[in-house]
Amino acid sequence: MRENTAQSSALPVAPTRGRLRPLGLDEVRITGGFWARCRHINATATLGHCRDWMERVGWTGNFRAAAEGRIHRDRRGREFADSEHYKLLEAMAWEAGGGTPLDADIAALTDVIAPAQEPDGYLNTAFGRPGQQPRYSDLEWGHELYCHGFLIQAGVAQARSRGEGELAKIARRAADHVCATFGPGGIEAVCGHPEIESALVELARLTGEQRYLDQAALFVERRGHGTLADIEFGRAYYQDDLPVRDATVLRGHAVRALYLAAGAVDVAVETGDDALLAAVVRQWEAAVARRTYLTGGMGSHHRDESFGDDFVLPPDRAYSETCAGVASVMLSWRLLLATGEPRFADLAERTLFNVVATSPSEDGRSFFYANTLHRRRRGTVPAANVDSPRAESSLRAPWFAVSCCPTNVARTLAVLPAYLATADDHGIQLHQYADAEITTSLAGGHGVALRVGTDYPSGGSVTVRIGRSPDHPWTLSLRVPAWTEGATAWLVDPDGERRAVAPGTASVTRVFRPGDEIRLDLPMAPRWIGADPRIDATRGTAAVQRGPLVYCAESVDLPDGHDVDAVRVDPSAEPEDGPDDTVVVPGEVAPPGEPGDAAWPYRPLGHVAAPAARHTGIVLVPYHSWANRGPSTMRVWLPTTEADSTGTGR
Amino acid sequence: MRENTAQSSALPVAPTRGRLRPLGLDEVRITGGFWARCRHINATATLGHCRDWMERVGWTGNFRAAAEGRIHRDRRGREFADSEHYKLLEAMAWEAGGGTPLDADIAALTDVIAPAQEPDGYLNTAFGRPGQQPRYSDLEWGHELYCHGFLIQAGVAQARSRGEGELAKIARRAADHVCATFGPGGIEAVCGHPEIESALVELARLTGEQRYLDQAALFVERRGHGTLADIEFGRAYYQDDLPVRDATVLRGHAVRALYLAAGAVDVAVETGDDALLAAVVRQWEAAVARRTYLTGGMGSHHRDESFGDDFVLPPDRAYSETCAGVASVMLSWRLLLATGEPRFADLAERTLFNVVATSPSEDGRSFFYANTLHRRRRGTVPAANVDSPRAESSLRAPWFAVSCCPTNVARTLAVLPAYLATADDHGIQLHQYADAEITTSLAGGHGVALRVGTDYPSGGSVTVRIGRSPDHPWTLSLRVPAWTEGATAWLVDPDGERRAVAPGTASVTRVFRPGDEIRLDLPMAPRWIGADPRIDATRGTAAVQRGPLVYCAESVDLPDGHDVDAVRVDPSAEPEDGPDDTVVVPGEVAPPGEPGDAAWPYRPLGHVAAPAARHTGIVLVPYHSWANRGPSTMRVWLPTTEADSTGTGR
Repeated sequence: MRENTAQSSALPVAPTRGRLRPLGLDEVRITGGFWARCRHINATATLGHCRDWMERVGWTGNFRAAAEGRIHRDRRGREFADSEHYKLLEAMAWEAGGGTPLDADIAALTDVIAPAQEPDGYLNTAFGRPGQQPRYSDLEWGHELYCHGFLIQAGVAQARSRGEGELAKIARRAADHVCATFGPGGIEAVCGHPEIESALVELARLTGEQRYLDQAALFVERRGHGTLADIEFGRAYYQDDLPVRDATVLRGHAVRALYLAAGAVDVAVETGDDALLAAVVRQWEAAVARRTYLTGGMGSHHRDESFGDDFVLPPDRAYSETCAGVASVMLSWRLLLATGEPRFADLAERTLFNVVATSPSEDGRSFFYANTLHRRRRGTVPAANVDSPRAESSLRAPWFAVSCCPTNVARTLAVLPAYLATADDHGIQLHQYADAEITTSLAGGHGVALRVGTDYPSGGSVTVRIGRSPDHPWTLSLRVPAWTEGATAWLVDPDGERRAVAPGTASVTRVFRPGDEIRLDLPMAPRWIGADPRIDATRGTAAVQRGPLVYCAESVDLPDGHDVDAVRVDPSAEPEDGPDDTVVVPGEVAPPGEPGDAAWPYRPLGHVAAPAARHTGIVLVPYHSWANRGPSTMRVWLPTTEADSTGTGR
Repeated sequence: MRENTAQSSALPVAPTRGRLRPLGLDEVRITGGFWARCRHINATATLGHCRDWMERVGWTGNFRAAAEGRIHRDRRGREFADSEHYKLLEAMAWEAGGGTPLDADIAALTDVIAPAQEPDGYLNTAFGRPGQQPRYSDLEWGHELYCHGFLIQAGVAQARSRGEGELAKIARRAADHVCATFGPGGIEAVCGHPEIESALVELARLTGEQRYLDQAALFVERRGHGTLADIEFGRAYYQDDLPVRDATVLRGHAVRALYLAAGAVDVAVETGDDALLAAVVRQWEAAVARRTYLTGGMGSHHRDESFGDDFVLPPDRAYSETCAGVASVMLSWRLLLATGEPRFADLAERTLFNVVATSPSEDGRSFFYANTLHRRRRGTVPAANVDSPRAESSLRAPWFAVSCCPTNVARTLAVLPAYLATADDHGIQLHQYADAEITTSLAGGHGVALRVGTDYPSGGSVTVRIGRSPDHPWTLSLRVPAWTEGATAWLVDPDGERRAVAPGTASVTRVFRPGDEIRLDLPMAPRWIGADPRIDATRGTAAVQRGPLVYCAESVDLPDGHDVDAVRVDPSAEPEDGPDDTVVVPGEVAPPGEPGDAAWPYRPLGHVAAPAARHTGIVLVPYHSWANRGPSTMRVWLPTTEADSTGTGR
């Protein structure tokens, strides 16, 4: 790996080494299109929404109660409620420009939190004060290091985005406490929920202090040796079953597994531990090949929010927690920076469009916690003023008793511009496509400015216009998404030369002139997708993908009030573009029967008549947009007429 | 409904009214065959195994600690650990003959329990003593009434099987306490886990005391009005979302739902509340039509052990808790007695052979808690001396931290003879088939003796030989199982006349003579079964049933160390009988690929080559017998070669 010489301080993730150098939020701006809309809603609605809800449900008051000595009787919310404030502060820090109202919001919230920090740096409103459980008495479930981790991340975000202020100081005191308490000679254990690892590495990167990195490395090495209790879900739940470097696949609680993997990459990169990095890559590969939904979603179990066995990916009740999507993007981004391999950007794109973008509603004030791929029953509208159960609604809910997802979406959208592009000694790499302005310097301090124009993912044409460029050759690289496999993408260089490019990376190396344009044309025709037959529940079905977007049938688009279980599609004919980013597929809409139509749902083969049906065009919508039009049923994987007509597919 | 005039006191369930009159354990004896073997193992191994484990893990010691005033620091096990003793005592009471060693065991265990009962009749080692939570302070999760319910059931069993002794007196004091505490003017609430309802009705039946029945009816009526907290799983988890008489389908935690339904039937029958009975029948119908596995198993969610939405029945991680199977048999039996309809005996048979009989190992010393229909990974051997997690093992475990299932299986096998036959004014009805001797009296006190000979479910021939009979005509009825649909069953009367009989009931009415034989010939050829297409995960698969037994492929029977996911079957050819109750089906065994063979398991349609395969005969074994030969993989629903060859089934 090469050493990074960062040119920006505004880096959400700032490895000192790696194949690619990240660009800061002062180097990349998203100026329009899909992600600009998402980010606008995030900044103008979601941030304030989260702040208001936490005040309303009393979680913010916990800090005041702690400072005033009445927390033992007044505490509200779950043991990790503090952390939502830190994630929100992180989002605000990245989002705020100098002197905007958000700066005042950050200061005000920091003023609430600061008095709750204890003299030795410990900060948690759920433990340690008179009348509460002792500190670190429940490492399995207490989330104290998890909360400290997000506090540190918020402090790092503040320091990097606007210079070290009060929040960064609080964070640093907390990190010092963590090192003093869990370092050599201290408590020899880990937290039931990984997160502290990445946070400490980022703090080491920010401050240059080795001890934070050492502590993070220690936490990574300690895990997998059974320091946590063997709970009913097994120690795999919190990855304490196997050392990180020995595991072959992501397993257990999906968010825990992915945060840990991200932290392990951070440690591996900073310490030059190639074996550790290779172990995480191996786990990522196995999880992507066998434990990931078409949407990029990870984690299929509701019970323990965990990865299932290989190929246990039923669309029914797919869990696919929003936070696992966030964590997967964090991991993929770190692996991309470390290795430069576009497959990591491929998964990040899939996950951003189909999990992260799916969670918030169009108004940014309600969220999916779980992202099922098949909703069979029109649910009820979640309570407007009460926490919702995290995983049971058919519609997005404004807040949850366990509300990790809204603030996690907020901080992801806040840093999204940083995921678009990187640099290295040879030039600039574009990984994600959006209308954007990119300004940075190449090796030797030569300034470069690019403008990206596209209506991706509606359209597949991406134009990069050179604004400023040194007068020596350099390389512009563009990711050709893996989803183009089997179709053809084209690259047009500044001379108008057009060549077919394969999935991976397409590059142009030359002396660029201001005004030069490079264009990538991606094949955006909607396509039928099939699944590995080992995924039982998708046998005899097909899904539709158009560009990076997964599509779904939603009952509001079906005639005669039918539910989605009435849909049968005919994948022998191609799907076609419909208006407004919809796709129309050939098929039938006919009820397979009404509830209660058979006394027993199993029959000797050959005894069930196929239902009457009529051919029609069935409208599909992007998965991320579903459930914005009231209670509905939805499915991504659509049974085929072919499967219906076989003897066993009935 | 008619009034029952019970002729036996040894009745596990003793309704005073109903279409059919149950026979007591002194009237029906199982003399050989499948169930005799299961019952022998239960009596000689399982009962002692449960007793030993509860002593070893300290649950029995809780009663001693309570009596000695040290329970607040010494208690072991979950809050419902007391109840396992009561279920075991119930099993022992029904199993023990007069003067056997089991009688001494019952007395000894009763002597441990008795001193823990408080002066007012309350008996629970988890609540109410100094240093413990107050009585009834956690009705949602405390299980106090649930434990009292099983205590009462044990007392009823003792009284009915051997005359009222100490255990019955303890039970009655507990019931008096419950009525005093939760009756009119008392706590207006219900228990988070139904069970007390049936128990109080049985005590009313035993004692003739109306107040027990009134209290049971009160509990049934109170439920569904939100007296319990709205937990994350929702109030449907403990059926407190809707009044019993308003609900249209079984929902929430499966065991809770089924115990409640059984108790509601008991109340309905005793109070003549036909509307309540009809409500439960309606719920049973909906659950059987849309929320039941092929095995009869109920409850598909791991997270909350609950029924899923209609048709959410993926074989992967099917939960199908053993106790839900037990509870389903309890409910079906009550509905059969109330209505006389053979469909209830059909489900009981399916559930007994494929859930209840599946749970215990061949040696009766380990158990399945959950009964999945698809096991993908060879697991590890559960710990021999430590509680196992309830739902994660691939093999049966000797004991669980939540160990409701072993004792529930024990008490079900102990009363199994009572499920074989009933009587009414017109004669005798046979519902389940086993080698058995039946002796009872018809209306007017006319003695009847029958001997049933069969090797069911290996063979399909059931011969009923008349031993004693009055010299006037009466009716012998035999259930023709619903699983014979589409094949032909034959009834041969004492004159040798043979006629085809349809699913339902086949009867012979005549003056029977000693030595007369009636024979039912059931079609036992193995058959392919398909599922409603709304059950996603069984599309493109077929299962095999032979008589009442569901079959499965198990990896130990496959060549070359293949796992079951390598199996494809060809349902265009018929399955055939193999040796030792196996079935052989035509198909292919070829790996669909090795783990890691594709980087991403989804592909544009038409790009995946079918794996090489060779046709062979694949051996299937009865589902109840799987996992008795070491760690293995298993599946009930087998993908078809036909589905593989279609464009979308790959």
